[in-house]
Amino acid sequence: MAASRERLLRAGVARLTERGFGAVGLEEVLGAVGVPKGSFYHYFGSKTEFGLALIDSYDGYFTAKLDRWFGDEALAPLDRLRGFVADARAGMARHAFTRGCLAGNLGQEVGALPEPFRARLVEVFEGWEARTAACLTAAREAGEIAPDADCARLAQVFWLGWEGAVLRAKLERDAAPLDHFAAAFFDMLAGRAPG
Amino acid sequence: MAASRERLLRAGVARLTERGFGAVGLEEVLGAVGVPKGSFYHYFGSKTEFGLALIDSYDGYFTAKLDRWFGDEALAPLDRLRGFVADARAGMARHAFTRGCLAGNLGQEVGALPEPFRARLVEVFEGWEARTAACLTAAREAGEIAPDADCARLAQVFWLGWEGAVLRAKLERDAAPLDHFAAAFFDMLAGRAPG
Repeated sequence: MAASRERLLRAGVARLTERGFGAVGLEEVLGAVGVPKGSFYHYFGSKTEFGLALIDSYDGYFTAKLDRWFGDEALAPLDRLRGFVADARAGMARHAFTRGCLAGNLGQEVGALPEPFRARLVEVFEGWEARTAACLTAAREAGEIAPDADCARLAQVFWLGWEGAVLRAKLERDAAPLDHFAAAFFDMLAGRAPG
Repeated sequence: MAASRERLLRAGVARLTERGFGAVGLEEVLGAVGVPKGSFYHYFGSKTEFGLALIDSYDGYFTAKLDRWFGDEALAPLDRLRGFVADARAGMARHAFTRGCLAGNLGQEVGALPEPFRARLVEVFEGWEARTAACLTAAREAGEIAPDADCARLAQVFWLGWEGAVLRAKLERDAAPLDHFAAAFFDMLAGRAPG
């Protein structure tokens, strides 16, 4: 039975990275995994509760990915961030750039979503930023970036630009926006003049 | 009669900056402006055609805003870009950060949109970027940024980050993401180390 719950979450995440919450019908998710409506309501009280569980599930997956990269002590700190960027890029390429970021997608339609989604999505981004800031702090301690760099602020700038780049990569069905933003961000960290 | 067309476009743009194309029903737009369905189909053959007209309308409005700022020869080139940023920020604040960018919103749900939307949205971003690149080229000629700066690439980085910041500002209902990204971008242009 728990397997049904997992299958519902997987099918939901796949759809919510492609399209919005409003555009994805419950019937479609149920149909895709062959789970009857009654079972669905056994696991999730409502579409809202399902949506919140999808955010948790995606955040868990994504946080584990960040922790894996940022915790890899065999790499220099900035190479850990480069490793994450390459991994996330490969993830988008694997789905031919049709899937973006679940948190970014839901953020875009937040005005039409149940109110609890908003606070939860802000929390999700803050969690990713805190991990990224810790990685940048390690880079600062290793002398890879300037000793007075504001790592919390840089981590926020990374996520603002990265989410914008994911959106654009999906629109263009191409990796170029991810590559352009990442190159500019690493140039910025190195204090290199742009160009 | 042309006034009805304008009112339909205005009501549509307002809704599409708040929510997605899938989440906005035609009935709602028609109800808001008091235009009967028959008149709607007189102006627009379908919801798809209406959507494309909304993109054109928003692009026209936004391009005029960019041209106004970037064409203001009384300002130094980077102050023209700063003026645009402050103007766009004030626009979001006026709607209490509930409205984002119509092109960004539609881009996020592009997988669920009629195919002609995708090419048109890419074109819209390319138009904004070309204008921004011209402004940055003027800044380079004026000695405000490095003589070897790649202005086309910088303009793309600006729009990737700006769209990400607009998304986040809407999610947080706060100007801070816009301010953080703009500050980081101008630091980057100045070749200042981050911090």
